[in-house]
Amino acid sequence: MHRFLVLGHEAHTSPDFSLDDVPGTSGRIDVLARCAASAFLLSHGIRMDVELYLVLCGPSRPPRTIRMVGAELRHLNPDERSTAALFLRALQIESIAESMSTPGIYVSGMGFAKLLETLGGPFILLKEDGEDMRNHRVPRDAIFVLSDHIDFNEEDEKALMAHDPAVLSLGPRSLHSNQCITIVHNELDRREATV
Amino acid sequence: MHRFLVLGHEAHTSPDFSLDDVPGTSGRIDVLARCAASAFLLSHGIRMDVELYLVLCGPSRPPRTIRMVGAELRHLNPDERSTAALFLRALQIESIAESMSTPGIYVSGMGFAKLLETLGGPFILLKEDGEDMRNHRVPRDAIFVLSDHIDFNEEDEKALMAHDPAVLSLGPRSLHSNQCITIVHNELDRREATV
Repeated sequence: MHRFLVLGHEAHTSPDFSLDDVPGTSGRIDVLARCAASAFLLSHGIRMDVELYLVLCGPSRPPRTIRMVGAELRHLNPDERSTAALFLRALQIESIAESMSTPGIYVSGMGFAKLLETLGGPFILLKEDGEDMRNHRVPRDAIFVLSDHIDFNEEDEKALMAHDPAVLSLGPRSLHSNQCITIVHNELDRREATV
Repeated sequence: MHRFLVLGHEAHTSPDFSLDDVPGTSGRIDVLARCAASAFLLSHGIRMDVELYLVLCGPSRPPRTIRMVGAELRHLNPDERSTAALFLRALQIESIAESMSTPGIYVSGMGFAKLLETLGGPFILLKEDGEDMRNHRVPRDAIFVLSDHIDFNEEDEKALMAHDPAVLSLGPRSLHSNQCITIVHNELDRREATV
């Protein structure tokens, strides 16, 4: 299983944004939509063996966690708008306990620290100055933790570091979170193919 | 310089599509928009050392080639809609000779075979059954040639094979073209960093 967690610092937690201007009205839910596309989409199909956690921390009722499960997903399209529409639908659910919004998409009132605690690890934090991922033995079912376009704040980083994550780098350039997901998949795919 | 060429088999060559439904109305110009984002965008900035050629072959006046130059680009945003809007603007230009549409974006009436001939190579064709890119010495300024969501047809492939491209694979899974661009960048970035 390839597992990812992305923190959306300002991502709206109410279904109050416009699909005609997702970047401008949603606290950058477009970033999370691209992460979902990178996490689940192959050239002709969906990666079944993937789980993605999106933690949304923006207005008006933070936090919300959207959990996406590859084996259950139906009809995830590569364009941002249709994925943002799925998130819009998920955000219409207000319950704190996890409930299913559409097949493979679950939503709850969990926040970042609590989610880390529930998942338990092993976590991997991607950072430019980390150890090269290509030289690191990644534990099975490790959860790669990424931030959106805004860096982790002190509190988030403290919550994560309490779980003693491996700190890994993907290469010399600083990339978008969806690009990082693509590169992590590729490295894990290669390893799994040679087992 | 990292160079990419993406063939958009059905991508509209007239500015006749809707930004509210790019996947459904443009012959999948959203695929090309995602390729542009992967080709040019770093976490906080634009890759200056990139050139991207998009060959559009859909209705109503094919072919059109959009050439994007990292060093000249202004304001490329990561969302698909705003990039599709730049393409819409480029397609308003009807001349066969290349002209600039917006900074760093040029458009002409060149087709795939003619473009290959003009560029001259060295070309690299990405294919699942190719040699592993990690084991291949990529020539300087090589042009990575990709197709959109539709495979190359016989005529396109023949035109490309006439230029004797290296045929390389990025890994065991079949990926979207924008994901391939991300992985190629990462591999080239790593090599350039260790020179």
